Amino acid sequence: MDRLYLYDTTLRDGQQTQGVQFSTPEKQRIAGALDALGLDYIEGGWPGANPTDSAFFEAAPKTRATLTAFGMTKRAGRSAANDDVLAAVMNAGTGSVCLVGKAHDFHVTEALGITLGENLENIRASVAHLVAQGREALFDAEHFFDGYKANPDYALSCCRAALEAGARWIVLCDTNGGTLPGEIGRIVAEVIDAGIPGDRLGIHTHNDTETAVAGSLAAVEAGARQIQGTLNGLGERCGNANLTTLIPTLLLKEPWASRFETGITQDALKDLTRLSRMLDDILNRVPTRQAPYVGSSAFAHKAGLHASAIVKNPSTYEHIDPALVGNARIIPMSNQAGQSNLRRRLSEAGIEVDKGHPALAEILTEIKAREDEGYSYDTAQASFELLARRALGIMPRFFEVKRYRVTVERRKNKYDQMVSLSEAVVVVKIGDQKMLSVSESMDESGSDRGPVNALAKALGKDLGPYQGYIDDIRLVDFKVRITQGGTEAVTRVVIDSEDATGRRWSTVGVSANIVDASFEALLDAILWKLVRDGAPAS
Amino acid sequence: MDRLYLYDTTLRDGQQTQGVQFSTPEKQRIAGALDALGLDYIEGGWPGANPTDSAFFEAAPKTRATLTAFGMTKRAGRSAANDDVLAAVMNAGTGSVCLVGKAHDFHVTEALGITLGENLENIRASVAHLVAQGREALFDAEHFFDGYKANPDYALSCCRAALEAGARWIVLCDTNGGTLPGEIGRIVAEVIDAGIPGDRLGIHTHNDTETAVAGSLAAVEAGARQIQGTLNGLGERCGNANLTTLIPTLLLKEPWASRFETGITQDALKDLTRLSRMLDDILNRVPTRQAPYVGSSAFAHKAGLHASAIVKNPSTYEHIDPALVGNARIIPMSNQAGQSNLRRRLSEAGIEVDKGHPALAEILTEIKAREDEGYSYDTAQASFELLARRALGIMPRFFEVKRYRVTVERRKNKYDQMVSLSEAVVVVKIGDQKMLSVSESMDESGSDRGPVNALAKALGKDLGPYQGYIDDIRLVDFKVRITQGGTEAVTRVVIDSEDATGRRWSTVGVSANIVDASFEALLDAILWKLVRDGAPAS
Repeated sequence: MDRLYLYDTTLRDGQQTQGVQFSTPEKQRIAGALDALGLDYIEGGWPGANPTDSAFFEAAPKTRATLTAFGMTKRAGRSAANDDVLAAVMNAGTGSVCLVGKAHDFHVTEALGITLGENLENIRASVAHLVAQGREALFDAEHFFDGYKANPDYALSCCRAALEAGARWIVLCDTNGGTLPGEIGRIVAEVIDAGIPGDRLGIHTHNDTETAVAGSLAAVEAGARQIQGTLNGLGERCGNANLTTLIPTLLLKEPWASRFETGITQDALKDLTRLSRMLDDILNRVPTRQAPYVGSSAFAHKAGLHASAIVKNPSTYEHIDPALVGNARIIPMSNQAGQSNLRRRLSEAGIEVDKGHPALAEILTEIKAREDEGYSYDTAQASFELLARRALGIMPRFFEVKRYRVTVERRKNKYDQMVSLSEAVVVVKIGDQKMLSVSESMDESGSDRGPVNALAKALGKDLGPYQGYIDDIRLVDFKVRITQGGTEAVTRVVIDSEDATGRRWSTVGVSANIVDASFEALLDAILWKLVRDGAPAS
Repeated sequence: MDRLYLYDTTLRDGQQTQGVQFSTPEKQRIAGALDALGLDYIEGGWPGANPTDSAFFEAAPKTRATLTAFGMTKRAGRSAANDDVLAAVMNAGTGSVCLVGKAHDFHVTEALGITLGENLENIRASVAHLVAQGREALFDAEHFFDGYKANPDYALSCCRAALEAGARWIVLCDTNGGTLPGEIGRIVAEVIDAGIPGDRLGIHTHNDTETAVAGSLAAVEAGARQIQGTLNGLGERCGNANLTTLIPTLLLKEPWASRFETGITQDALKDLTRLSRMLDDILNRVPTRQAPYVGSSAFAHKAGLHASAIVKNPSTYEHIDPALVGNARIIPMSNQAGQSNLRRRLSEAGIEVDKGHPALAEILTEIKAREDEGYSYDTAQASFELLARRALGIMPRFFEVKRYRVTVERRKNKYDQMVSLSEAVVVVKIGDQKMLSVSESMDESGSDRGPVNALAKALGKDLGPYQGYIDDIRLVDFKVRITQGGTEAVTRVVIDSEDATGRRWSTVGVSANIVDASFEALLDAILWKLVRDGAPAS
């Protein structure tokens, strides 16, 4: 079998997506996940051009994949060793470096304003410099396909310059995304005929005609052996080639599965759906339901035309088994499938339930109903446990929230500046005792932290006999998403909490009212800790 | 030039999308828009199977396009004339009828439980019945590609039965979406070689491997002359072939544009972006930013790698001119972008600023500082314009917000249920006049819509002389993201607004306090409308 190499550029080209800006810890987390999946190359960013990219490489994670720094070929009029932009890229110290350079004559003379010969020399000298420093070199041929159509000899000579200087890979980029698959296939074949070996060629497509995946496949069919893309098809404009689609196609579908070998195992593939949703979670994006392979609708059968046939044998309406990519089938009137799954998840939470227990069906029904309202229990494991405990009748009664009130006020202060202050009053009943707590939203430095902060402080201020259990709870993350609950837009709040032992748990609240949604998640966070630490019922 | 026929199934297969259910008036509105665009066939639904489909055909709009009813071939053991399901389809009285039937031997014997011969006779007799009644007949060959791979002779004999009975079109369906473009092209070519003429063949693909568009193009390349698809790629699971992408590719890109003629004019194509967003509006979906051709990011350049070249000549980074599909270029602000970039963006907003104007540097500095605080002006074009106007001294003074207060209260009602209610008071000063407005969060149905809703209503309730300008503002989307502002987590709120003319604009607010962040974005939304509609200063 031929080896096919997969190159991920989520952290570099993916960051060109409108509205996307990764933090350094986010980049580290994504790189770790890509490495676990089995990508061959992880492009981490452009060190020197972007502070978070530089920071990422400074504390680069140890990966099995080849971590790659991105940059551009040296500029004209100086040597590669004396180009400060290139030096910053080299200083990241990665085993592999990918340099973008022009391959379209028009861009050389118009955008760069240098001669065609100078550009060739920039490519040659830059690649030679990488190789001399012991790095694996990749040359990213920008606008290659448009350049080839305009001046094939020059586009090819750019590739040859890189190849002869020792580049491991020549990556053919369809920079503006306008080349259709048929043309990509034809041109890649011509490039190989012209003497650039296919096992030195990569393909980098964009989705401007919704054919980035097909274009990548056409290039491999023609002989290219590296595919560049991003998770969830992130990227500038319409995105890059979607690796989340390409990977299962290459591993599961013919003729690809029999012809090629990649660094990704069938076992790692089972994590694909989770990985795709993790990325959306980091970006606080609603996952695309219709996404191939990993979308929540990808294996959802709507009982229309094929209703009876689907119920008889759903797999005849599926092109692959959803479990192979960690996804799940959704069929109308689904019931039995869920129970063993549910028992396993409860068992993981230390709750053992007998097979066939009547509460199991009740829990599934309630989860389904709540998911229709906008709840999501995929990540909010702690809220899921509380829901299950209530259905099973094993949820202790600790305290009752009678009412609360939050006020947000914005007005001028004595210095004539607009300032905001929130105040929260929470009333709880513990046994026969009623406790009123009040807090405001000001932090130690005198800054307003908002109404949810005031509410969290008031709720956790005085819970009588339970205070010792909850004093070490710390709110570590707070995610807000507007989602659809029935026919109305509602707010879903997911809160991550942590305690002094380093234990972390997630809870969820949903309401049209963001303060209520937050309160529900805050309350679940406290209740879960009381249950897990064995606090006595009141 | 060869004539290529476009067949829209948004109203039938598109309705199989999870969560989509059109009303009859919605179907009529969409059919009218499809007709204006120039589609050849509009499939309206399955009369008899679905009440809204029946109602749609009962009050069918007059269209230039051929309105088509969908149904299935007659069942075994009765004649076509005596099949009540088929009769309901015929009764819709459309000029054309499309009947789905099996073409995969396994599905005939397993799902239908009839013999292969009976299935052939059902196809033949059903198509002959349509033709005898003077209807144009289409045969939808379900699971054709899987069927062809399993038993090519039988799959072909199903097509021949329909053809010989007088079907105008044989539509090859990739029902489960699993066939890749290369295989589609090969099989379509073999079908034509086996004697089914290409100008009688249609292609119907699904997007389960993200190649539905490429698969359709491969079929046409091989000789098929009808493409079936949906607007915005609606459809079961991962959707159908996306006509919103295919249409501009066929009209604007080679080799398609020179080889084929469709019913769509270049003039109608300019309405494509509006049409795509209208459909999202009907479905209450947030338009996909990254959608090819029509997405708001499709021609958005993020000034990273290509910053200076894009500013010099953005069209060299675009595969088509966005105006051809009614879309627009966006050059977002960014820390790497310079003054010429800024001047271009201002000019697009109707603000002409001389080169070298001192306010330009000031605006760039302020944008940078605000982005560090957590603002994002990539999408919030309206807030960007207001910021620029203030720096340029051309922002009229309309009114001043003196203070506001929002209260969120949750307590038991008289029925002993926990209920929430928010109340907002906003005080504004217009000229010398102070106006106090108060609103609560209850909607017409008595549901609590939360504190931001109460605040938006109070702010827009009485703005004196400006009320007439803002009464038609409608909040269409509200996005919340927790982000990093300096060293603290802050909340970023982005609001999309729309007015009666269909104009849309986006504004942003940032604060540790979500209510404040929302208020800032709401206020910008109102101010932008006042500026754009030329409201006088107070």
